[in-house]
Amino acid sequence: MLAMTAPRLIGLDWGTSSLRAYLLADAATVLDVRSRPWGIMHAPPGGFAAALQDTVGDWLVSYPKLPTIAAGMIGSTQGWAQAPYCPCPAGAKELAAAVTAVVIGTDRVLHIIPGVEQHGDAPNVMRGEETQIAGALALDTTLRAQSLLVLPGTHSKWVAVRDGRIEHFDTYMTGELFAVLRDYSILGRPAQEAEVAQSPFWTDFARGVEVAREAGESGLMPKLFLARSLVLQGQLGAAASLDFLSGLLIGGELRAALCGAPGQSPALIGDAVLCDRYQRAFSQFGVRKVHRLERVTPDGLWHVAVLAGLVTPSFVSNQSETIQ
Amino acid sequence: MLAMTAPRLIGLDWGTSSLRAYLLADAATVLDVRSRPWGIMHAPPGGFAAALQDTVGDWLVSYPKLPTIAAGMIGSTQGWAQAPYCPCPAGAKELAAAVTAVVIGTDRVLHIIPGVEQHGDAPNVMRGEETQIAGALALDTTLRAQSLLVLPGTHSKWVAVRDGRIEHFDTYMTGELFAVLRDYSILGRPAQEAEVAQSPFWTDFARGVEVAREAGESGLMPKLFLARSLVLQGQLGAAASLDFLSGLLIGGELRAALCGAPGQSPALIGDAVLCDRYQRAFSQFGVRKVHRLERVTPDGLWHVAVLAGLVTPSFVSNQSETIQ
Repeated sequence: MLAMTAPRLIGLDWGTSSLRAYLLADAATVLDVRSRPWGIMHAPPGGFAAALQDTVGDWLVSYPKLPTIAAGMIGSTQGWAQAPYCPCPAGAKELAAAVTAVVIGTDRVLHIIPGVEQHGDAPNVMRGEETQIAGALALDTTLRAQSLLVLPGTHSKWVAVRDGRIEHFDTYMTGELFAVLRDYSILGRPAQEAEVAQSPFWTDFARGVEVAREAGESGLMPKLFLARSLVLQGQLGAAASLDFLSGLLIGGELRAALCGAPGQSPALIGDAVLCDRYQRAFSQFGVRKVHRLERVTPDGLWHVAVLAGLVTPSFVSNQSETIQ
Repeated sequence: MLAMTAPRLIGLDWGTSSLRAYLLADAATVLDVRSRPWGIMHAPPGGFAAALQDTVGDWLVSYPKLPTIAAGMIGSTQGWAQAPYCPCPAGAKELAAAVTAVVIGTDRVLHIIPGVEQHGDAPNVMRGEETQIAGALALDTTLRAQSLLVLPGTHSKWVAVRDGRIEHFDTYMTGELFAVLRDYSILGRPAQEAEVAQSPFWTDFARGVEVAREAGESGLMPKLFLARSLVLQGQLGAAASLDFLSGLLIGGELRAALCGAPGQSPALIGDAVLCDRYQRAFSQFGVRKVHRLERVTPDGLWHVAVLAGLVTPSFVSNQSETIQ
C-alpha cells in the first residue's frame, strides 16, 4: 500500500444539473469518480443529503475522517448552504479563506468553495469555474502571471488572470442559447425532422463561424434567422442546420470577446468535445495557438482544500483508511 | 341594406399559432372577425378543412360565392398548399400575380398569397408580413416611394420599401428569443419565483434598452447574463427582470438594425402593446418620430384580392348575399 494511493479528500463538483464526486489521493490523484444526475435543481427525494448518500455513501462510511469539499451551485441560495461570493480579484488563496463550512451529519462537515463576483460596470458572477481556474493555475503555473482563460459551456466564461487571481471576467450564454434554440425554437425543427445523419457537420459549423466573424457592426442578432432561411432556400441541409447554428453562436461569442482582447492566446479549459469546437472557431479567427487543459476540477478542489488547511500536500497517511 | 355593408371577401390571416378570419365589405371594411387557435402547427382533428369549418363555417354557407383569400404560413410546405415565395423586390402587384389557388371543397377555392424571399448575400424569407405591408402601403401612400417599415413580433422584420415594393428585409428573432429565454432558460427563473407584481416595469425596460445601446462593438452577447447577475447582486428586482430582458433584446435589435439605417424615421406596424415597447426603445435611440399603423392585415388581404381580380373595388352587389 503506497501512501500516495491513500484517499485524502472527497471532492464534489456539484452544479445545477449534475453531481460529480472525486475520491482524491495526494497531489489530486483521482482514485475514483462517480457521476449522478443530482444537480441542485434535480435532487432526489430526501434532498441533498440523500443525493450525497446515493453518490458516495460508501466513501463516507469507509473514510469517516476524510475532509469533504464542494464547488458549484451547491453553494448558491438554492444550494445546501450559501457560500457568499468572493469579490474580484480573487485567487485560490482568497477562495480558501472564504470557504463556508456546513455540518451535514454527525461528525461531518461539508466545506463549500465560494463563487466569485464582479462589481462595477460589468456585474457578473461565477460558481464552479473559480475552482476549475484554481486547478488550471495549479497545473500550469505559466498561466499565473497573466493569461486569458476560456471556459466554454452553458455559460461560457472568459477570464482575465493576473498574478494568479481572477481579475475580470465576462459571461456568454452560448451553451444555454444553443440548447433553448435547438429544443424550443423554430431553428431546431428542421434537424428534428431530418433523418439521423453523420454528425458533426464541420463544413456547416465553419460556415456558421464565418458568418459570425464577418457580421460586422450589427453583430449576431440579424444572423440567427439564417439557420432557417438557408434551409428553406435549399442552401443548408436540415440535419446540418444545428451545426451551422452552433458555429454561428460560438463564432458570435468569439467575435464579441475578441473585440476586447485581440491577438491574445487563450487557454481553453473544459470538456474536450466542446473545446474542439472552440479551437476550430478560434483558428477561423486567426488564433492558431490555443493552450488546452482538461479535467482541472479535481486539482482545483485539492488546491483550495490545501490552502484552507483541510489537507496538507506533504501529508503521509497515519490512518487505516486506504483504498483497495 | 347598404351596398358598402355587403360582404365581399373572406380574408384569412393564417399563421403558425393562430387563425384570424375577416368578413370584409367594400374598401376592406371589417364586418366581422373571428380568432381561433388553429395555427398550422395546431390544427384540430380533421386538419385545415375542419379548422376553417369551425371558424367560418357559417360564412361559407351564407355566402357561397364569396371569394376567399389567405396569407401566412398556410401557404408554406407545412400548410394547406404551397404558395411559392415571390422574389424581392415584390409589391402587391407581384403578390397578386403569384396567388396560388387551391380547391378546398365543392365549388370553393382558397387563394393563397405567397411569401417573399430574398436571395444573394442576405438570404431571407417572410410569410404573412408581405400582406401586412401591402395593407400599410395601401392605407398610407406616403410610405410607398421610400420608407423603412418595422414589424415587431416573434420574428421582427425590418423592411426597406421603394416604389411600393419590398426591396430588402432583415429578420430579428427577438420575440422568439425572449419567449424561449423566459420560459426555458435560467433568465426566466427569478420572475417565475417572484410574486406577481405590477407590470410593465418601464424603468427596468429602459435600463435594458440603455445597456444594449451602449454595448459597443461587442454587442448583445456578453450582456444577456446581466439579467441574472444583476438580480443576484440585488440591483434588479426578480419580477422586473423580464422587462429588463425585453429591453435588452429589443434594444439589441434596434442597435443592430440602426447601424445600417441611421436617422431614418421608421413606420411601426403591428400589435399596439408591442409597438409601444418599440416606440419607447426608438426614443432612447434618438428616433422620436415614429409613424404607427395598426390592423393593416384586412387591408392587405383586400388590396391583393383586388389586384388578383377576385373582387373589384367599385363592385356593387347583385347577389342576394348580405349581412343581417
